[in-house]
Amino acid sequence: MSAATSFFRSRWIEAPEHVTELDSHALPAGFRAGGVAAGIKPEGLDVGVLVSDTSDTVSAACFTTNARVGAPVIVSRQADLGSLRAVVANSGCSNVGDGKRGLGTALAMQAAAAEELAVEPAQVGVASTGVIGIELPREPVVNGVRAACAGLGDDAADFSAAILTSDRGPKRACLGVELGGGSVRLAAQAKGAGMIQPSFATMFCFVQTDAELEAETIELLTGVCVKRSFDRISVDGQLSTSDTVFALAGGASGVRVEPESSDELLLGQALDTVLRQLALEIVADGEGCRRIGRIVVEGRPDAVEQVARSIANSPLVKTALHGGDPNFGRILQAAGQAWPPGDPFVADLEIEGRQLVSAGDAVGLTAADLRELEELVAGDEVEYMLTIPGEGGETEVFFSDLSPEYARFNAEYTS
Amino acid sequence: MSAATSFFRSRWIEAPEHVTELDSHALPAGFRAGGVAAGIKPEGLDVGVLVSDTSDTVSAACFTTNARVGAPVIVSRQADLGSLRAVVANSGCSNVGDGKRGLGTALAMQAAAAEELAVEPAQVGVASTGVIGIELPREPVVNGVRAACAGLGDDAADFSAAILTSDRGPKRACLGVELGGGSVRLAAQAKGAGMIQPSFATMFCFVQTDAELEAETIELLTGVCVKRSFDRISVDGQLSTSDTVFALAGGASGVRVEPESSDELLLGQALDTVLRQLALEIVADGEGCRRIGRIVVEGRPDAVEQVARSIANSPLVKTALHGGDPNFGRILQAAGQAWPPGDPFVADLEIEGRQLVSAGDAVGLTAADLRELEELVAGDEVEYMLTIPGEGGETEVFFSDLSPEYARFNAEYTS
Repeated sequence: MSAATSFFRSRWIEAPEHVTELDSHALPAGFRAGGVAAGIKPEGLDVGVLVSDTSDTVSAACFTTNARVGAPVIVSRQADLGSLRAVVANSGCSNVGDGKRGLGTALAMQAAAAEELAVEPAQVGVASTGVIGIELPREPVVNGVRAACAGLGDDAADFSAAILTSDRGPKRACLGVELGGGSVRLAAQAKGAGMIQPSFATMFCFVQTDAELEAETIELLTGVCVKRSFDRISVDGQLSTSDTVFALAGGASGVRVEPESSDELLLGQALDTVLRQLALEIVADGEGCRRIGRIVVEGRPDAVEQVARSIANSPLVKTALHGGDPNFGRILQAAGQAWPPGDPFVADLEIEGRQLVSAGDAVGLTAADLRELEELVAGDEVEYMLTIPGEGGETEVFFSDLSPEYARFNAEYTS
Repeated sequence: MSAATSFFRSRWIEAPEHVTELDSHALPAGFRAGGVAAGIKPEGLDVGVLVSDTSDTVSAACFTTNARVGAPVIVSRQADLGSLRAVVANSGCSNVGDGKRGLGTALAMQAAAAEELAVEPAQVGVASTGVIGIELPREPVVNGVRAACAGLGDDAADFSAAILTSDRGPKRACLGVELGGGSVRLAAQAKGAGMIQPSFATMFCFVQTDAELEAETIELLTGVCVKRSFDRISVDGQLSTSDTVFALAGGASGVRVEPESSDELLLGQALDTVLRQLALEIVADGEGCRRIGRIVVEGRPDAVEQVARSIANSPLVKTALHGGDPNFGRILQAAGQAWPPGDPFVADLEIEGRQLVSAGDAVGLTAADLRELEELVAGDEVEYMLTIPGEGGETEVFFSDLSPEYARFNAEYTS
């Protein structure tokens, strides 16, 4: 595989022509990062710091919508989210459910990074992932923050490793993006898997660019691209207490991207493909996951989302995906469950481009058709296309399968 | 175990004092039933018929709320649901998604039973379960209906066997019920398990009594008791296309139960405990199920239901239940996910009567406490009690665990 295509692995993501893939752990100009082993996890890097050295850096943030959130989300929400200069993150403990002590530790992490980096505490975003309901030990984590600040370097290798929990490996990319006004870099480091030791699927994504953006531009691009990526995936239908996205634009490239310009569109396309590919990697990294599915639903605008989610979260659809079974009955059952009561439900269904259901009834497949279909659903990515009554709505959800390994891992781990 | 307690196995169901357990396959006076092997399944009984010989039999019915239903549900909904005389049911094929041909076969089953039993077709309820999306072969199933009618007997042994699919064994009971006006019998035969070959968790329950009831009484009692039993369980959160309850009261005992009488209450109590125990057996029979959970949620009336369902359907809660892990973090995460946005979420949580979370934060347990709790959650039934903000609402949901066997079974079966 050529370097140009090694990151954009999914057939559902097409790399834009104005994008060049760089070393995955590289950073845009004006950014430094580091990671250390602070003893929060039994072994390995577990505390990371990322900083933008440009004083007029602009930023944007997105958080979980779970009503139950961890202390780092509470602290970060009160930060200056449009002008963050740094991110401090740890794995091994999510700092959730520890009351005032946990809040105090998140504030101490923020304050330590601010002091070391000579920025305001409100300019530091905080994110933690890992075991919940236990204490995040304050002294080791604060010492780790200071050590990471002391060892900042020009790449994100240690930073991207320090945020991982049960991920199989780092999820990151750095792209060169050709804009009309010149070249910029766009980098992102993510984490997230089917479930996170020991509890649930926290995802992080930290984005940097050296393009010079207005604050509203980074907020707009981040908001739109997160909705098209991390909001469109489901591993097990479980919403974490700690999901966090921080995006920072420092401007060190000297290439300015004006609002509503063609360069804004080009940068947005690059960000969109990066976040969508990273989102797919989170789905594919689901515990025990063998293959991933994409469900596209077209029809009544107020129904497509709930129907797509019902399918993506159905354990019966997910086990069929795992088993390489083109089981259309489970798709229709999950769709019918989510269809608004009272209205007739009639659907067409295609799997991998082959029509299996027409106007609600099974299309008689020949044995040869069925064999061909069984080969198609044995690949790494399986696509389902459902047309429901009504017009004008369309959505997609990417989802992992459900394997015996998922159930075993989540049953056997005891917090 | 004494005969009086062999059916009411769950600690959550208390048998009323005015109830005596009879042979589980017995029928009330005036009812006959039969079952035959018609070749719909590869082997075993697969077509059953039940009839009330009393001409003024009253009845009630409940069906799945899935927008996608099978032909038998469509046909049954058009029957005289308040005056059914007979039920015809088959396993091995659910007759879903087969268009006009499937509707014709359901009507043919109904007509054949009506002819053999000398009742109107509209007095026959139809129910099918099993493989979906394939043809229910008309001639064998109609021949089976006629053969079952020809072999009707005084007990429900063959009938209750003919409705099973992946159930480990028959789910049935027959009780003597002492009312003020005399003794009556109440019987029920159910089916349902974690998933039904090959697709999803269809449940049936057929209820008979020889008490003499008004039509509105059986409708009221059935509606209330179904809401407290089969509506309060979740195996995998999947709503079948074929769920069906038929309840028939023939009156052959000569004991009349007046509306709003104390006897109506006594009969309702008996029905309530029978249906709740049968519902728990469906949960416990979930594919690969080791233990079952009961989540009770108290608090805001408009939130308790969605919070309880979110917990009962969470794969992380279900795998923790399977693993004997008193994982309170997963309970809080699933609850927070379902809590209405914008309002603060603070909860108390008890597992098996031990408080683990107070005002949203973990209660520090001693090592001895934790060991004791781990023993308690290793039993067959585990109880969770969650108090959320607000007052006046309370609900409960019974749910199965999620095991590697569930995932394996549902992945490996190919329809």
